[in-house]
Amino acid sequence: MIQEIFTHRSIRSYKDIPVPEEVLDRVLSAGIRASNTGNMQIYSFVVTTDKKIKEALSPCHMNQPMVRQAPVIITVCADIRRFSQWCKQRGAHPEYDNFLWFVNGVIDSVLASQNISLAAESEGLGICYLGTTTYAADQIIEVLNLPQGVIPVTTIVMGYPDVVPPLTDRLPLQGVIHKERYHDYTPSEIDEIWQEKEASEETKNLIQVNDLDNLALIFTERRYKGEDNKLFSRNYFETLKSQGFFNQ
Amino acid sequence: MIQEIFTHRSIRSYKDIPVPEEVLDRVLSAGIRASNTGNMQIYSFVVTTDKKIKEALSPCHMNQPMVRQAPVIITVCADIRRFSQWCKQRGAHPEYDNFLWFVNGVIDSVLASQNISLAAESEGLGICYLGTTTYAADQIIEVLNLPQGVIPVTTIVMGYPDVVPPLTDRLPLQGVIHKERYHDYTPSEIDEIWQEKEASEETKNLIQVNDLDNLALIFTERRYKGEDNKLFSRNYFETLKSQGFFNQ
Repeated sequence: MIQEIFTHRSIRSYKDIPVPEEVLDRVLSAGIRASNTGNMQIYSFVVTTDKKIKEALSPCHMNQPMVRQAPVIITVCADIRRFSQWCKQRGAHPEYDNFLWFVNGVIDSVLASQNISLAAESEGLGICYLGTTTYAADQIIEVLNLPQGVIPVTTIVMGYPDVVPPLTDRLPLQGVIHKERYHDYTPSEIDEIWQEKEASEETKNLIQVNDLDNLALIFTERRYKGEDNKLFSRNYFETLKSQGFFNQ
Repeated sequence: MIQEIFTHRSIRSYKDIPVPEEVLDRVLSAGIRASNTGNMQIYSFVVTTDKKIKEALSPCHMNQPMVRQAPVIITVCADIRRFSQWCKQRGAHPEYDNFLWFVNGVIDSVLASQNISLAAESEGLGICYLGTTTYAADQIIEVLNLPQGVIPVTTIVMGYPDVVPPLTDRLPLQGVIHKERYHDYTPSEIDEIWQEKEASEETKNLIQVNDLDNLALIFTERRYKGEDNKLFSRNYFETLKSQGFFNQ
């Protein structure tokens, strides 16, 4: 059993201690051992420790304090550029500038990211993924000088944990598994799957603090609202096109 | 150090031994411990062991023999359906049927997948990811009865390894890392990054077998050709739209 998998929590507060270069190298080496499409390694890791660049990245991530506070920010990018450049230098004609290879690049980036995260945790580091990476990808591209053929997919902030929160809950395992084929959910199955989460003290507190009737409304009216979802969807899709991942 | 990360190889030949249910449960439990957007768990794992359904899945994956041979096939799907259904049952108005949530769903599916894979390896199992999942996603949808709001992202075949191949090579770590910002590659840097791979016996054999001038041409003219890339791009993008991930 890999302990790190079962004890993982997202760390949002870090000690003011740098990550030694040899530790960071071991952690990043774990990333490139992950499975990847055709062993083409169509990803790049941009590793930012410079204070000024972290400050420039901060507004791209809705000014979450950990972007300035964590010693290391790894922006994980799908990268068809390096591979395509190599092909061209060998007289080959690469055609990876399309949606399939965007998806392949995202998958390979994320497989590598999870290896990096677990390896970091095995070194006593903590991490947090930033889902905001896709919200303002165009701004991240400017800050990090990402050229055509490169697009940010996710970000890992990393450092020695200051505050370690409790494990977060999950839906019951059977609620996300389908045996043999997909079996659609009945209303009572949905109720059952969410029962424990909805009955928790944490949920009750959230409902009170947000002054709403139930947990679902906290998601749809506060955390992930329709207008934001649509705006970010259009922005990221435009960025994908302008970075050269939609020539088909 | 997590040994499984550094000893991982894709297993393409499996023993005819089923995976005990309690082992599979532990492995899948590892999946749901991964970080995920808003702890919304917008993924589903379709776990197929039935011979007939595996046979029906086989042509969706270009008839790779391991789809029939491996005892367990896990089709990992982005799933906004379950969460949206819950929202509706609570009188909330979910708007996750757009491109942002497709990308979030892919990222969360793949983070869970890598936990599943590493946990499987820690149990003595072997795995292989099937990149073909995006090629014929529409056919997989039919075989597995995937409804609106659910799209296959990747597939893990799993079982006890029969043949364990050697570790595959990787580009030098420094070739995929960028310090602080992205630094574009010069032609000589590209040459240097690929030097060892191009000089290997494996590459020399591949070039001979394929009767081509260099390794890059094996990718562009044999393995991942432009016309296929474009066809699969259009197909997967159409599937994404028809499954309800592009209302923006």
